[in-house]
Amino acid sequence: MLRTPSLRLTVAQINPTVGDIDGNITQIVSAWLEYDSDTDLIVFPELSITGYMPEDLLLKDGFISDVERAIDQLIQKSATMKSAVLVGAPNRDKTNLFNAAYLIESGKIVSITHKVELPNYGVFDEKRYFTPGIRPEPTDFRDHKLGIMICEDMWFPTVADYLSSKSADLFIVINGSPYEPHKQSIRIQHARLRATQASIPLLSVNQVGGQDDLVYDGASFALNANGELILQCEEFMEEFQTFSFSNKNGIIHPQHAETQSLYQAATLGLRDYMRKTKQSQILIGMSGGIDSALSAAIAADAVGPQNVTCVMMPSDFTSDLSLQDAIDCATKTGTKFQTVPINGMVHQFMATLPNTSGLAHENLQARLRGIILMTLSNQYGAMVLTTGNKSEMACGYATLYGDMCGGYNVLKDIYKTQVYNLAHWRNGQKPLDALGNDGELINHSILSKEPTAELRPHQRDQDSLPPYDELDSILMGLIEEDLSPQQMTARGHNPEIVTKVSRLLKHSEYKRRQSAPGTKLSHRAFTRERRYPIVNGYQN
Amino acid sequence: MLRTPSLRLTVAQINPTVGDIDGNITQIVSAWLEYDSDTDLIVFPELSITGYMPEDLLLKDGFISDVERAIDQLIQKSATMKSAVLVGAPNRDKTNLFNAAYLIESGKIVSITHKVELPNYGVFDEKRYFTPGIRPEPTDFRDHKLGIMICEDMWFPTVADYLSSKSADLFIVINGSPYEPHKQSIRIQHARLRATQASIPLLSVNQVGGQDDLVYDGASFALNANGELILQCEEFMEEFQTFSFSNKNGIIHPQHAETQSLYQAATLGLRDYMRKTKQSQILIGMSGGIDSALSAAIAADAVGPQNVTCVMMPSDFTSDLSLQDAIDCATKTGTKFQTVPINGMVHQFMATLPNTSGLAHENLQARLRGIILMTLSNQYGAMVLTTGNKSEMACGYATLYGDMCGGYNVLKDIYKTQVYNLAHWRNGQKPLDALGNDGELINHSILSKEPTAELRPHQRDQDSLPPYDELDSILMGLIEEDLSPQQMTARGHNPEIVTKVSRLLKHSEYKRRQSAPGTKLSHRAFTRERRYPIVNGYQN
Repeated sequence: MLRTPSLRLTVAQINPTVGDIDGNITQIVSAWLEYDSDTDLIVFPELSITGYMPEDLLLKDGFISDVERAIDQLIQKSATMKSAVLVGAPNRDKTNLFNAAYLIESGKIVSITHKVELPNYGVFDEKRYFTPGIRPEPTDFRDHKLGIMICEDMWFPTVADYLSSKSADLFIVINGSPYEPHKQSIRIQHARLRATQASIPLLSVNQVGGQDDLVYDGASFALNANGELILQCEEFMEEFQTFSFSNKNGIIHPQHAETQSLYQAATLGLRDYMRKTKQSQILIGMSGGIDSALSAAIAADAVGPQNVTCVMMPSDFTSDLSLQDAIDCATKTGTKFQTVPINGMVHQFMATLPNTSGLAHENLQARLRGIILMTLSNQYGAMVLTTGNKSEMACGYATLYGDMCGGYNVLKDIYKTQVYNLAHWRNGQKPLDALGNDGELINHSILSKEPTAELRPHQRDQDSLPPYDELDSILMGLIEEDLSPQQMTARGHNPEIVTKVSRLLKHSEYKRRQSAPGTKLSHRAFTRERRYPIVNGYQN
Repeated sequence: MLRTPSLRLTVAQINPTVGDIDGNITQIVSAWLEYDSDTDLIVFPELSITGYMPEDLLLKDGFISDVERAIDQLIQKSATMKSAVLVGAPNRDKTNLFNAAYLIESGKIVSITHKVELPNYGVFDEKRYFTPGIRPEPTDFRDHKLGIMICEDMWFPTVADYLSSKSADLFIVINGSPYEPHKQSIRIQHARLRATQASIPLLSVNQVGGQDDLVYDGASFALNANGELILQCEEFMEEFQTFSFSNKNGIIHPQHAETQSLYQAATLGLRDYMRKTKQSQILIGMSGGIDSALSAAIAADAVGPQNVTCVMMPSDFTSDLSLQDAIDCATKTGTKFQTVPINGMVHQFMATLPNTSGLAHENLQARLRGIILMTLSNQYGAMVLTTGNKSEMACGYATLYGDMCGGYNVLKDIYKTQVYNLAHWRNGQKPLDALGNDGELINHSILSKEPTAELRPHQRDQDSLPPYDELDSILMGLIEEDLSPQQMTARGHNPEIVTKVSRLLKHSEYKRRQSAPGTKLSHRAFTRERRYPIVNGYQN
């Protein structure tokens, strides 16, 4: 049995911005100054200097040079510090770029550890940028031997086994690990295997925050050598914790239930997209339906109700109930409300192109609404939030350049049935970090009425699509499990409906290719994680 | 010195469709039947059964099973054939998927060769799908030893050296190698090194055709053991050639000059996007400017002038000259022409939102035009071709959901200065495969007038952007060479202009993310090849 490390460690679960090297260094140094006196080592996430994931910025020679200058700054700073830092950054030699962890102390680099296991599946493309490291040696640090690993290294036994064979007495893992449902349980499972097999305690530090269509949940944690959880940071929030394996455990924030995590992930994804692109105002086209209502609730929670404007754009087909529901939702969420009728424009358009009918006429209404929103967006400097959920995006049940207009889409990876769950959940409670109102935000009428696009008289979503329960069940099989229509039919679904849904899914790829980004919240998010050709002759 | 192989070989430079396994097998079998009596081996391109590149279709278990069934078909067919085939297809064992070449003869698989070097840079993501093969052994075939390689394998000495050490007497390389300028010279350079170092002749077969935002140029070729070119297929066309290294060389079609290649690449990219998504009609918003004129010329060459409709949508700011130029261009290209004025709709919109001014008013015009085009698209089942060139896409000099509306963009990867070159070039000649008119298509007035968006009185592109010569020179440095603004300034460009262009480039990433696909024609195409984050705090 190894002794328990006596080091004092500080978890720095920060929210860096991709590419903002100066800003990230400022965050790192300011945390360092704050915790320096009470700790031996402050641990920051994977690629903390660049933010995860800088994508093709990594191919720029100048970008890597700027990273090197930033590391020099940290080295200089370290001369005045009592404690050390472990930070993530790219590291290059003459021909290779590595995903690395720098341990910096007392005016010098103590060690540079290269990531061995480079994920190149799902949302990850690390082999596009990095060369895998060779087995990393433990780092001697203050009478301990640190077994430093980078994210994916912890998911396989190879690196940990080697570090353990070289007498490491503490595993430290730095991560850029995005949220998906149940991810934290899987992380802890892998970590527990590493810790218990080697009888070595393990600290895992993850970044938090949104980056384009990914959100990182944080939830940094520590396990003792028996694999017991002794520290866990909050999900979706920055957090710092100082602790020691030998005599002072950390705080264990509980994991949230799935619906709460989804809601918070969506909120943080949007909030950070706004903040990191330096935008504050959001515009939402309100229909009186559940999607725009939930989007308004999330937007209000993300940037504050005072920064959200809901715009109702009624036509001849808009019911009084929809108008009233839209007003009620704006009132309850505390967002601003504006009405811009589209009738005059529809009639003028019909005078210009009198033959517009059927689907063209339905799309026309959606597109005129899109123009109104984009005009308001241009005038007020507000970003339009588009509100198509994953079921709609999957089936192409949305108008390109119409209701698909917008800079971001919080519902993009949320199935319609999940939209209802989230609305009910948010009516019941308000998450800690939410900036929106307390109490019920989405009234009963919106939750209980039948979904309709109101683009022609008496239209119901179910005229074009199967009921959402059935639709989502089929879509989840085809998308999340990558099953064939035959396999879905074997599960008992109606073959005709399965074929229809499968065709819709395939033939709307061209729409999704032009859709707004939105936070990945499932196991298989469109575009970044499910990379399909548009030209696709595959029949299934 | 090895003896010269006496085999008769048939190059099958086909144009498969991604995912269309049945259709591709039909192409393969029909060529096989046609050339069977006169050849020993017909060589098809990399992944010819699936088309290159099937992307995440490869992750579907059912897709790989369907490929296996297709290979069984070929095996059965081979029992009735005199000759053999070499086809590309994925190949799996229990845990891995390989990018493979199958040699099939007389009712059985003679050999399966795995690709060793998997490209995972630029437009390629092969490490997402495939496991690299171990050193492949030569294949015994009709008294010869074939050294089979797959595309990237030929770009490095390792595989060829090993095959040569194992007494291979003929290199056969199957490829899915997309077009970019000067690519063919580089391919031949690598091939020549492999052939001459081993004194082994080499045949390289590439696919041809468009697939989403890539176009494959074909240009299959053969080198004798001295590295001399003895066969070269046409660029951008399907072609079959039967030849033997020992007594009958092939036909050597010359390489085209760069401008012609660019033009043909753009044309084929669009033609195949239309054909493979089963569309025939194209709509273009005409402005009277050079971009829409060149787009109309390429569209007419791609699908025939009778399938192209140019729509002029004049406003108060549209000059008589623009109207006349648009009519002239439609006449010369032989395309249909329609006029839909937008004034009535602009005025009606202003009655609805009277404060619309400045940029919002400019965008409004572009967006009303977008709606008109999309309405016509919905009514007639025609695809809108959007016309923003690479210089505009780089600077965000385009209206999202306005002139950016469209299913495809042939100019997306063509800088403005190249647009002029291509227009001049096409006025001088018509390529062999072009379906458009002979003679001058784009009149002098369009070529010589100053570029303007005509969204406000007396507007010129140069009011917002540097002159295009200067702009393109800066953009090419920043994009194609990945240089920093500092490096561009060191080249003698005005620092203020460089900073402005660099900022425009960075801040318009969100627009490009929602832009239509368009054929890669440069060394660094947006989106697939230049993968930038939208949230990007990097200052350079």
